Amino acid sequence: MTFYEKLERHQQKLSKLAHLNAICGWDQASMMPEGGNEARSEAMAELAVMHHELATASHLAEWFAHAEAESLTKEQVISLKEMKRSWQMSNLLPADLVEKQSLTGSKCEHAWRSQRTENNWHAFSKNLEKVVELSRQEAQIRAEATGLSRYDALLDIYEPGMTTKELNKLFSDVKSWLPNLIQQVREKQNAEKVLTPVGPFPTEQQKSLSLEVMTKLGFDFKHGRLDVSVHPFCGGVPTDVRITTRYDEEDFTSALMGVIHETGHARYEQGLPAQWRGLPVGEARSMGIHESQSLFFEMQLSRSEPFFDLLAPLASDAFERRDDSALSSKNLTLLNTRVKPGYIRVDADEVTYPAHVILRYEIERDLIEGHIEVADIPELWDKKMMEYLGLTTKCNYTDGCMQDIHWTDGSFGYFPSYTLGAMYAAQFMAAMRKEMNVENLIRGRNLQPIFNWLDRHVWKKASTLSTDQLLIDATGERLNAEHFRTHLVERYLK
Amino acid sequence: MTFYEKLERHQQKLSKLAHLNAICGWDQASMMPEGGNEARSEAMAELAVMHHELATASHLAEWFAHAEAESLTKEQVISLKEMKRSWQMSNLLPADLVEKQSLTGSKCEHAWRSQRTENNWHAFSKNLEKVVELSRQEAQIRAEATGLSRYDALLDIYEPGMTTKELNKLFSDVKSWLPNLIQQVREKQNAEKVLTPVGPFPTEQQKSLSLEVMTKLGFDFKHGRLDVSVHPFCGGVPTDVRITTRYDEEDFTSALMGVIHETGHARYEQGLPAQWRGLPVGEARSMGIHESQSLFFEMQLSRSEPFFDLLAPLASDAFERRDDSALSSKNLTLLNTRVKPGYIRVDADEVTYPAHVILRYEIERDLIEGHIEVADIPELWDKKMMEYLGLTTKCNYTDGCMQDIHWTDGSFGYFPSYTLGAMYAAQFMAAMRKEMNVENLIRGRNLQPIFNWLDRHVWKKASTLSTDQLLIDATGERLNAEHFRTHLVERYLK
Repeated sequence: MTFYEKLERHQQKLSKLAHLNAICGWDQASMMPEGGNEARSEAMAELAVMHHELATASHLAEWFAHAEAESLTKEQVISLKEMKRSWQMSNLLPADLVEKQSLTGSKCEHAWRSQRTENNWHAFSKNLEKVVELSRQEAQIRAEATGLSRYDALLDIYEPGMTTKELNKLFSDVKSWLPNLIQQVREKQNAEKVLTPVGPFPTEQQKSLSLEVMTKLGFDFKHGRLDVSVHPFCGGVPTDVRITTRYDEEDFTSALMGVIHETGHARYEQGLPAQWRGLPVGEARSMGIHESQSLFFEMQLSRSEPFFDLLAPLASDAFERRDDSALSSKNLTLLNTRVKPGYIRVDADEVTYPAHVILRYEIERDLIEGHIEVADIPELWDKKMMEYLGLTTKCNYTDGCMQDIHWTDGSFGYFPSYTLGAMYAAQFMAAMRKEMNVENLIRGRNLQPIFNWLDRHVWKKASTLSTDQLLIDATGERLNAEHFRTHLVERYLK
Repeated sequence: MTFYEKLERHQQKLSKLAHLNAICGWDQASMMPEGGNEARSEAMAELAVMHHELATASHLAEWFAHAEAESLTKEQVISLKEMKRSWQMSNLLPADLVEKQSLTGSKCEHAWRSQRTENNWHAFSKNLEKVVELSRQEAQIRAEATGLSRYDALLDIYEPGMTTKELNKLFSDVKSWLPNLIQQVREKQNAEKVLTPVGPFPTEQQKSLSLEVMTKLGFDFKHGRLDVSVHPFCGGVPTDVRITTRYDEEDFTSALMGVIHETGHARYEQGLPAQWRGLPVGEARSMGIHESQSLFFEMQLSRSEPFFDLLAPLASDAFERRDDSALSSKNLTLLNTRVKPGYIRVDADEVTYPAHVILRYEIERDLIEGHIEVADIPELWDKKMMEYLGLTTKCNYTDGCMQDIHWTDGSFGYFPSYTLGAMYAAQFMAAMRKEMNVENLIRGRNLQPIFNWLDRHVWKKASTLSTDQLLIDATGERLNAEHFRTHLVERYLK
């Protein structure tokens, strides 16, 4: 056996442990009764330790050295590079820091659940300070190893290759036109008459509708399923993708659009190339590219009138409301493209969403780089919310800087992925339109060419290309925020 | 840390891997889409390898030696003994034999699924011969290590302490009265008029009824759940017990009685003592004792008129059939105590069931001891079926010697547990009756004293006592098949 082959076998072993973790984690979120949590958490922690030991095995250093001297195919060279990157990343942090982060993060997150409800910034900030301190240590170690800045070194975990310099440029561009765009859209929408569908919409009927829409979107039920969890997600493994949703009997669109979003994630996973399964090179490229697929499905594809022409009759049938004008294609389109600045990121529409992300990016960047402290967050939050969305969060921590789970366990560097995903998605759609008439395909109920394009340009590429190269190969250019602006103008101002 | 403590920590690690295996196995049987099977099987095989490596770790020999010299409490001495027994059992078989057994068993079982349908004994017997050959090797190794006979050494895996000598005595006693008893019951039941409930009984209503009955039987839904699988089972872990059933819309009693059966298994698991969790001494005593709890719930407790008085109104309500006389307590009792010799073990009633088990026991015992060969099975099966139940299986392998999954993967020594469980259950009930009026408690809807007795005498004992001692402590005597005969006579001939 060559050293390259030995490394592949080692990675396959890691992938199998990750499989067990994915299924037990899905079960914990969607199936497990509450009394099972303690033993489950312990069992999964043990699995994490075993995974970490394998992922950081020191003898791999020698294997990598030998494998690099072996005669490899072009594809194996790329695969080897990704295996090595993965091993190096796993090895960067000392075990005691990882353990401290895990404990401090769990404690902060757990307390946050009640502190948020109580609007208790004072207590929360004490825990958050410890989390930030450890994240700064992590950033420092990663920065020294990679030559990146501290925040860039964290960004690199979620979006390899992305930098503060690039984000500052992208986001300052967005900031230059977004407030004005929101204003214009608001004025235009003022005149629109939108009906709010009146519940109840029984869960069982919503579920049937969800399954039907997933089928139309090409979800492969031989390799996945739909269930319920408090926080919807896409989990499982590529051969068995588990997506979840939650049903609100008063509002069927929230679950429906959520299911479409997760179906985008799921199709990426299901579409990853089988020949690289279990190896780093066969995994999704980045968080931003993953989000680009969910947002392509939810925003680019589905939140459009041609798609609601397809969706509305399905909904009317599912709820046996064939004469309810609130469920007409026209009304559903208006309803689902409504723009209104609000406090909560996860409830935000497509147009105001980037403002929420940019605000968080600017704060976490300066926090990690040491330019601001935890105590500065509320004031900055309020100032930026006023500036970007015209809303004050003074003394309202619950709906302000305490609304997200991300910082509680130290996931600094994650937020930009959301808006990068929206930009990638718009750019993919713009490129796709050069090859086909997307609206006509949707009206003709023929979505296959759309999926084929994504499969060819994104899903089957997995991690064989850098994000930059993937964009260039698929669209002819590097990330260009102009496509996103054009998309918003086309959809919301025309 | 003492060596005893080190051993406990090692066992807890094994228990955590077993936890992951239990949940992923449950998922595979009840949730997983078919396309996920290959990767799942591989991931679980990897977990099995890791478990085996830990379970057989050679350095434990030294730890055991040291721990045995340490000053331990009486309970720790028992715990240590069980840990050592578990380690020794794991270490008995060479890895290549285990691997060969796993592959040969999988192949035989997989082919059996279609061969059984095709009644193809010829092809099946070729695979079975290989399985038997490997099981004989295993039996030989276990026999040499334990000083037991070959078959007894396999029996010991499922029912520690039980022997061929004891089983021959118990079963020849049963054989002396069973055919005559079946005859008498049949004659008595000839005159009975029983109504067959007419479906459909919608799955959703059956599920509600199942959950209600589980609640009445004390199933703890904070530590478990009910789902659907092709072959019903009780899985999961003590803090999160997963039971499954399958619903037949034409016959609600099959799922209902099955759920009651699995609830018995579940309450044993949920009732195991928390202080020994994760250690061998804290596990269920044996397969036979486990089956005694499911059969106590299904047969001793539920298949009686007082219990159907409780159950019938719940069923009538669940299916909205308050005037259906087929759902009356009287009719449900008659229906669920109907005795009729049949070909299939899993469909057998309480009275004819032991005949199916004794037949299999006698054949597998002689097979493992080398007194007969695989080719002899069909003729012996036919002869014994004629003798015990008056049915011929000549040329009908599908409903004869090819009906069970057990032998396909070499689980020789398992079958006796079913009838041992029935006997233990009858003996527990007889002892319980000395302390309380069980019928009056059921009629008074007060099942708690019944559960308390089982909890005290069985569940909380876990593996701290030998099966023999557990029986003696709980009932005042060793296993005595007379209680089982008395139970059958009381229920079916009075």
